[in-house]
Amino acid sequence: MMRSKVLSLVARAASNRMMSTATKLTTVEVNDKTGIATLTMNRPPVNGLNLELLQDLKSSIDEVEGNKSRGLILTSSSSTIFSAGLDILEMYKPDKDRIRAFWTQLQETWLALYGSSVPTAAAINGHSPAGGCLLATSCEYRVMVPNFTIGLNETQLGIVAPKWFMASFLSVLPQREAERALNQGRMFTTEEALKVGLIDETANSKEEAIEKCVAFIGTFAKVNPLARSLTKQQFRAADLQQLQNERQQDLEKFLFFVNQPAVQKGLGIYLEGLKKKAKKQ
Amino acid sequence: MMRSKVLSLVARAASNRMMSTATKLTTVEVNDKTGIATLTMNRPPVNGLNLELLQDLKSSIDEVEGNKSRGLILTSSSSTIFSAGLDILEMYKPDKDRIRAFWTQLQETWLALYGSSVPTAAAINGHSPAGGCLLATSCEYRVMVPNFTIGLNETQLGIVAPKWFMASFLSVLPQREAERALNQGRMFTTEEALKVGLIDETANSKEEAIEKCVAFIGTFAKVNPLARSLTKQQFRAADLQQLQNERQQDLEKFLFFVNQPAVQKGLGIYLEGLKKKAKKQ
Amino acid sequence: MMRSKVLSLVARAASNRMMSTATKLTTVEVNDKTGIATLTMNRPPVNGLNLELLQDLKSSIDEVEGNKSRGLILTSSSSTIFSAGLDILEMYKPDKDRIRAFWTQLQETWLALYGSSVPTAAAINGHSPAGGCLLATSCEYRVMVPNFTIGLNETQLGIVAPKWFMASFLSVLPQREAERALNQGRMFTTEEALKVGLIDETANSKEEAIEKCVAFIGTFAKVNPLARSLTKQQFRAADLQQLQNERQQDLEKFLFFVNQPAVQKGLGIYLEGLKKKAKKQ
Repeated sequence: MMRSKVLSLVARAASNRMMSTATKLTTVEVNDKTGIATLTMNRPPVNGLNLELLQDLKSSIDEVEGNKSRGLILTSSSSTIFSAGLDILEMYKPDKDRIRAFWTQLQETWLALYGSSVPTAAAINGHSPAGGCLLATSCEYRVMVPNFTIGLNETQLGIVAPKWFMASFLSVLPQREAERALNQGRMFTTEEALKVGLIDETANSKEEAIEKCVAFIGTFAKVNPLARSLTKQQFRAADLQQLQNERQQDLEKFLFFVNQPAVQKGLGIYLEGLKKKAKKQ
Repeated sequence: MMRSKVLSLVARAASNRMMSTATKLTTVEVNDKTGIATLTMNRPPVNGLNLELLQDLKSSIDEVEGNKSRGLILTSSSSTIFSAGLDILEMYKPDKDRIRAFWTQLQETWLALYGSSVPTAAAINGHSPAGGCLLATSCEYRVMVPNFTIGLNETQLGIVAPKWFMASFLSVLPQREAERALNQGRMFTTEEALKVGLIDETANSKEEAIEKCVAFIGTFAKVNPLARSLTKQQFRAADLQQLQNERQQDLEKFLFFVNQPAVQKGLGIYLEGLKKKAKKQ
Repeated sequence: MMRSKVLSLVARAASNRMMSTATKLTTVEVNDKTGIATLTMNRPPVNGLNLELLQDLKSSIDEVEGNKSRGLILTSSSSTIFSAGLDILEMYKPDKDRIRAFWTQLQETWLALYGSSVPTAAAINGHSPAGGCLLATSCEYRVMVPNFTIGLNETQLGIVAPKWFMASFLSVLPQREAERALNQGRMFTTEEALKVGLIDETANSKEEAIEKCVAFIGTFAKVNPLARSLTKQQFRAADLQQLQNERQQDLEKFLFFVNQPAVQKGLGIYLEGLKKKAKKQ
């Protein structure tokens, strides 16, 4: 029994669900019983984080902030990929204006998710590399389905994960583990991620993962929402403020790095590989 | 074989113990053999931290600092409560001057305990919510008797634990555990607290808890006290300095929050509940 | 099959090894197959860190930085001591100029090792107290042979380990463990060090320890070296910058402390003990 709390609704026949919009790359559904919103990324095939998906993610997070939901669960409509991370096409031979808008939007989306006033949890129902792992570690709780991988593998791609990726990672892992994994660009299996604390629980299906996220958010049932929100802010303020203070430099650093011939070449080779892979299938 | 090191003594017949004063809400006893001071909170029924108990705690900590004790063990005279935390009566319909003195004294007491130059340990012989947990986590070691609970449950009461409560908590728990527990206002059982590292050992009685605290303080037997104290200061300086820099803002923030009608209403309901409970018994 | 990459070589007959110099207190050997450099401390009997050993360590680290090695493994030529830490003779009745040069060099060497752009690992094939532990914890990975001890035992000697020793220690241990161990001046056995995370693996011999360090460095095989190096810098920048900002004060603090009559007396007694021990043997 789901109920949408946004104004423009698209009723779907033979379904108890209502989507906030049909054209967006994300959907928000609020469960009537629990009051918890499920935010689903839906940009096939791999939820590549391009400008539009990041914009929709941000507006969906804002929507959940505004509709008095008791919590937010982030998940994917794909059965194998949570999110493959930043869309390489945004970074390869980029348009000057669009790449600025892209990175600025990524900053905005992270600030909104990491700093969200409502309880957040990720139901990780597929692979979650790089930007996918950033989204997951920006939530307060992580439940993951087996046989997938998660991690910040930027160094494997020749990229440097910026400070705020590092901050999200450090909020869940000890410094020694975090530095080593980021240096290695290490991808953790579901089991390894559980052992090291990168995720909190495993679940055998997306449905069970969402149930466990609901249970986590349920632990706040008797908590004053304002006091809770201010407490969370206090823990995350330094990380959020650091990006706020350095947004421009962070953008310039990214642009400088992504425009290096070696990085462009690497991205090109990577894209060629993907194309060949696609043809073979 | 105890020996008091304060000037005004009150000898108690048929006892080897001497209390520093009979009227204070705390007592300090220094063991002749070990040179370790035991600081006992004694404000029945629940060691509610009111202005006077906080003042006595501060002067007792100063006394231990001054009397060359080899260490300080903090405990309670109650058999079921270590400390129930801040006295709600100080915050409900408060007197303008007294509530300022109250919060300022809480700051002073924390600065003295968290920054104490002597080794500190808590023998947690009863429940230890909120301010009680703050005192315990400000010590360097915690031994707890089973079947009690400990935690910073401020969000359950609609209050925000300030930054320095958070700092004390973060000094013993990983960031992920600390943020989640504080957001939830989670109370840990003795067993849960041990598992997560919020306490260091369990003991079957207050006596055994004190023995284990004595053993911990004994690990510094061959250590140069000045080098030890400066090393501890180095670890804690940033946390202490942060409160020193923000004492006035911290006070104003507390006053603003506690005077919110919603918080006053919540405290009123809470106090009514306590009164009814008391009548039933 | 080793190959030296420095200009001045001293070929040793009947050996596949080439040392960078014969007179230096350190040797650097680069393995042809792996491209990994092994930096061996060789100042018998205990690799006491005096001015000259620290200078040679720094120049060897610079050499490895410059010769495009794939990684650096730090180890000792002794079969029982990794490094006994700072040479007490540098601190006892010190020459005014030399002690300044000594401490300044220690700062330089730490900045080079902790901030090294190449992957670093320590093959800890002997006891590793104080400065020895500083070197080990400045690396990214630690493999240790059983039946030895490691730790920052400065407080046992009446000395305060400066902030950057603390930073290296905090990069591998949780805050609670780190503060307590430093306050106690605790030496961990190999087994205890493994349990608490102060080391990452054990090995039954120096050879096996080096093999395991090689395997760790091998995890970076598919990683972009520049992205890796910048990622590591990002994790360590705050610690490195703190010392850079406070180098002069850090030096003055050390000089003030080491020149205290009580500390000089303690060092004298310690040296007397060592001499008597040596005579008995």
